[in-house]
Amino acid sequence: MGTKKDFDHGIVILGAGNVATHIALALKNNNFFVRMVYSKTAESAKILADQIKTDFTTNINELPLVADLYIISVSDSAISKLIENLKVNNGIVVHTAGSISMNLLKPYFKNFGVFYPLQTFTKSRSLDFSEIPLCIEANNTFTQNKLLSLAQSLSSRVELINSDKRKVLHMAAVFACNFTNHMYSIGSELLKSEKIDLDLLHPLIHETAKKAVELNPGHAQTGPAVRNDKKTIGMHLKMLKKYPEFEKIYSFVSESIYKLNKKTD
Amino acid sequence: MGTKKDFDHGIVILGAGNVATHIALALKNNNFFVRMVYSKTAESAKILADQIKTDFTTNINELPLVADLYIISVSDSAISKLIENLKVNNGIVVHTAGSISMNLLKPYFKNFGVFYPLQTFTKSRSLDFSEIPLCIEANNTFTQNKLLSLAQSLSSRVELINSDKRKVLHMAAVFACNFTNHMYSIGSELLKSEKIDLDLLHPLIHETAKKAVELNPGHAQTGPAVRNDKKTIGMHLKMLKKYPEFEKIYSFVSESIYKLNKKTD
Repeated sequence: MGTKKDFDHGIVILGAGNVATHIALALKNNNFFVRMVYSKTAESAKILADQIKTDFTTNINELPLVADLYIISVSDSAISKLIENLKVNNGIVVHTAGSISMNLLKPYFKNFGVFYPLQTFTKSRSLDFSEIPLCIEANNTFTQNKLLSLAQSLSSRVELINSDKRKVLHMAAVFACNFTNHMYSIGSELLKSEKIDLDLLHPLIHETAKKAVELNPGHAQTGPAVRNDKKTIGMHLKMLKKYPEFEKIYSFVSESIYKLNKKTD
Repeated sequence: MGTKKDFDHGIVILGAGNVATHIALALKNNNFFVRMVYSKTAESAKILADQIKTDFTTNINELPLVADLYIISVSDSAISKLIENLKVNNGIVVHTAGSISMNLLKPYFKNFGVFYPLQTFTKSRSLDFSEIPLCIEANNTFTQNKLLSLAQSLSSRVELINSDKRKVLHMAAVFACNFTNHMYSIGSELLKSEKIDLDLLHPLIHETAKKAVELNPGHAQTGPAVRNDKKTIGMHLKMLKKYPEFEKIYSFVSESIYKLNKKTD
């Protein structure tokens, strides 16, 4: 656990959204020195800085030139402008985005990399950070070792993953998280229309996740699509006539389930 | 717990698949008298009958005429033929299908209903049956009371739900379970192609389910689609060119996420 010594000039957090907040809290909980929080929005900067008992600024020029690490965790669209304005001496600069190449940072910094936590974050939800896979990439060995050592003191699951692989991983996560959540949302909309309690689906939602993790999703599939039960599928499509988008999704996903299953049988 | 007395002529299970197996085990575990298992396939009938220490038959005419309850849990397409051939005196006959009207049973039996457990079942996975929502429907008060009392001794979550509502519930479950599982499958296929460990997604899968249950899926949504992050969406669609079906699903689901979120904002 010699890591904290390597970071005694402190860590700067750029951003105060969901990901920035969870990373900053994990650093604080593991006794790293978070030196300053930057955000364009004073209010969110202050909320995060207060939580981890540090300073904040809304002026990027007020950030320290000498720190061990700068973690940029802002929206993908805001990164480019931010790195143009960020001045650092030799400190490491990382971003936390799944879909952005490490080399975006190359023209601006000497030591740079990526620190991508593979999880869905909401400020208000506490998470066991030690279970979150941290995907690391770095432009040189010095940076890589420092990032690995930091990551390993925050999480038990640390992987070296390059930008191309990380993009695929992020896209897979969009399916497994955002799209999955949308399937729950559609279920919830359908129940709302019939005034049926959404919590009737909760045991099913939990078991579906557990089963996929324990059995592998390909072996866990059940339902009308995988059985090619055309009667039920036809009835559902008819019931969905009043929700044209859900009907389209139903139809394409059912077709895809059947095809994928036939392939892996 | 006076229920078992009401069922002292025993319960007959028709079917030996995933749902039949879990119901039969729950009955056995709660000390109900499962009198006989019927299945067209001797092997699966025997496996189930052995598990619950009862008899089995592959000849529907060998089933007892006098039993308290006949639970039909076969594939939707096999139900019609089965009920034509099932002879019972006054016993209650139920099916366990989400998408089939109770009235399918009307021409054949005096006391009938539906006993629909809302869960995804796999024979090899053990489940806490007491947490599974049981949806009950019956054609008369006698039958309803008997089914409610049985259901309440198996589960803490029992609901009276008519056939129309049950069909919507089942369709919502197809989204929340089968389609969700397919999103995991697609994630898994994408990772396989890059030789990335699927278990990197496990913490995300669990947290996505927990978050939807605790926060409501509408409030839990994250990712490029809900942010309308066209750059990331465009990149993902390009990466999916070699999987035309996944590309279609990505595109429609992203659009639907954005629209649904705008509506509920």
